[in-house]
Amino acid sequence: MKFEVTILGSSSATPIYNRNPTAQLLNCNERFYLIDCGEGTQQQLIRYGFKASKIDFIFISHLHGDHFFGLVGLLSSLHLNGRTKPLHLFAPAALKEILDLQFLHSDTHLRYSINFFPINPAKPEVIFKNNDVVVETIILNHRIPCTGFKFTEKKRLRKLIVEKLERDSIPVEYYAMLKRSVDFELPDGRRVNHLDYTIDSAIPKVYCYCSDTMYDERYFDQIKGADTLYHEATFMHDMLERALETHHTTAQQAAEIAKKVDAKKLLIGHFSSRYKTLEGLLEEAQAGFENTVLATEGRTFEI
Amino acid sequence: MKFEVTILGSSSATPIYNRNPTAQLLNCNERFYLIDCGEGTQQQLIRYGFKASKIDFIFISHLHGDHFFGLVGLLSSLHLNGRTKPLHLFAPAALKEILDLQFLHSDTHLRYSINFFPINPAKPEVIFKNNDVVVETIILNHRIPCTGFKFTEKKRLRKLIVEKLERDSIPVEYYAMLKRSVDFELPDGRRVNHLDYTIDSAIPKVYCYCSDTMYDERYFDQIKGADTLYHEATFMHDMLERALETHHTTAQQAAEIAKKVDAKKLLIGHFSSRYKTLEGLLEEAQAGFENTVLATEGRTFEI
Repeated sequence: MKFEVTILGSSSATPIYNRNPTAQLLNCNERFYLIDCGEGTQQQLIRYGFKASKIDFIFISHLHGDHFFGLVGLLSSLHLNGRTKPLHLFAPAALKEILDLQFLHSDTHLRYSINFFPINPAKPEVIFKNNDVVVETIILNHRIPCTGFKFTEKKRLRKLIVEKLERDSIPVEYYAMLKRSVDFELPDGRRVNHLDYTIDSAIPKVYCYCSDTMYDERYFDQIKGADTLYHEATFMHDMLERALETHHTTAQQAAEIAKKVDAKKLLIGHFSSRYKTLEGLLEEAQAGFENTVLATEGRTFEI
Repeated sequence: MKFEVTILGSSSATPIYNRNPTAQLLNCNERFYLIDCGEGTQQQLIRYGFKASKIDFIFISHLHGDHFFGLVGLLSSLHLNGRTKPLHLFAPAALKEILDLQFLHSDTHLRYSINFFPINPAKPEVIFKNNDVVVETIILNHRIPCTGFKFTEKKRLRKLIVEKLERDSIPVEYYAMLKRSVDFELPDGRRVNHLDYTIDSAIPKVYCYCSDTMYDERYFDQIKGADTLYHEATFMHDMLERALETHHTTAQQAAEIAKKVDAKKLLIGHFSSRYKTLEGLLEEAQAGFENTVLATEGRTFEI
C-alpha cells in the first residue's frame, strides 16, 4: 500500500523565493489527504502534477495565515472545476466562519458539500478513520491553539499463501476467515490453522506531523516510535530565545525530540525566511539525529 | 516620469500552470499601486523582483476570489516583515470584515494602519489623487458589484528653459510663477511672458483597467482615448453565450471596445483556463484592433 508524503511548502510565516508556506499532501493507498494549506498551495499542486480534485480530506493545524490562507482559493477552484463529491475538512472551528464570509461576498454557492469537523484543541482524539488510516490530533504548544496530526495505517488483513491453499484444495469460501486469523475444521474433517496458510501483513506505519510548536514533552508519548516524524524547525539553535518567544522549535531541538521519541526518520521544515540556504539547519539537526532530511518543496518521502 | 504597468496574473477564476489569478502593479513616478490581488500575488512580486513593501496603494475591483484571495496574505507578510507606514486600501466595503475576521483568529495585530476606503459601486467617482496621479472608479457590469479603475497622470508644471532664463538674468524667485504659466513685470520694468521661458510638459497619460465586465456601453465614455486600455477578454467569441451568462467579455468584443473608445493600445487578459495557449485570443482581438497585446505574467508595459 502506498503511504507517502509530498512537501508543497516549507516556509514559515511568509513565502520567499522558491519557498512556499506550509502544505503537505499525503497519499495513503491512492487517497489524498492535504495537511495545511498556505497561500499558493493550489499552484504548488499544479506545479508538481497533482490533481486537487483527488483530495477528499483536508486537515488544518491552526489559524496562522501561513497554514490556511490558500484554503479558500483551493475550495473555490474545486467548485469552479465542477466538483460535486463531498469534501471533509478538519480544522479549528472559526475557519468555517472565515470561509463562509468569503463565499457569501463572492456569491459562491459550492456545488459540493463540505463536511466540517471542528477540532478540539484541548485534548488529543481520533478524528477520522477509514479502511486505510486512522488520524488523531496531537496537542501542540503554540501562540494560538494548534494541533498536529498522527496518521496511522490500518493494520492490513493477513496475506494468503494462494499456491499452498490451492495445492491443499482449501475451498475459496474459507479464505476470508483465514485472512482474519480464524482457524476452523473442513467438512472432510481436516483442521485448518490460519498460520499455515497466511503470512502477517506489514506492520502499520505511522506519520506524525508537528507544526507549529515549541518543545513540549507532553506530546512526545503520542509521537513515540513514528516511522516518519515531520517536526517544524523554524530556527537554528542560536536563535533559541526567538524560538521560545514565538513558540517555535530549533533544528537542534527537533533532532532531540526525534531521538527521544525513537522516531525512525525526521523531516524538518517551516524554515524562517532569514535562512536563504538550509544546509545549516540540516547539519544542526543531523548532529543530533542522523536520519534527518529537509522537507522542501516537491520532495516525496515514503513513510 | 515613469508610468508603467507590470502584469502579475492573467488567469480568470482559477490558476493554471504558469498563469496566476489577476493582479497588476502600476509604477507611477516610483510609487507603486497594486490593482487586484489574486492568490499568489505576493509570490509573483517575489518572482519578478518587486518589493511588496514599496506598495502604498491597493485597489480591489470586486470580491470574486481570483481578484482578492491573495490580499490577506500580502498584508500579513507586510506586517511580519516589519512595515510601519500606513497602507491605503480601496475596495468593496465587505472586504474589511473579511480581513478583520482573519486577523482576529490568527491573533494578528498589524504594526501599520490600513486606511480603508469603501468603494461606492453605484457611481463613478474620484477616489484618490496625489501629485502624480488621479484615480477614478469605472462602473462595470458583472455578476457582483465591480469597479474598474482609471489612472490619469497629473498634468506636470511647465518646464523651464534654464539657459534662456540665466542669459536674460531672470531672478530665480520668479521660476515658480513661470512654471505655473504666470506672466509678470520685473522691478526693472521688463515684462516677462511665460511662453518665452518655458515649454509645455508632456500630455498626461491615461491607464484604464476594466476587469471583470460584460460589454456595456455605459462605461465607454470614461475610458475614451485611454493611452493604454486593459480590458478583460475571458473567452473567444465562439463562447459569446458563456461570456454573457458569466458577465464576461470576448476577445472580439474587447477589440471592438478599444476601437470604439479610440484607445491607443489594448492589453487583454483574464483568460479562461480552457485556453492552454493564447494565440487564438490574440489573433481574434488583433483582427478588430491591431495594437493589441497579451497581458501575461511578468510583462511590463509603458503607458
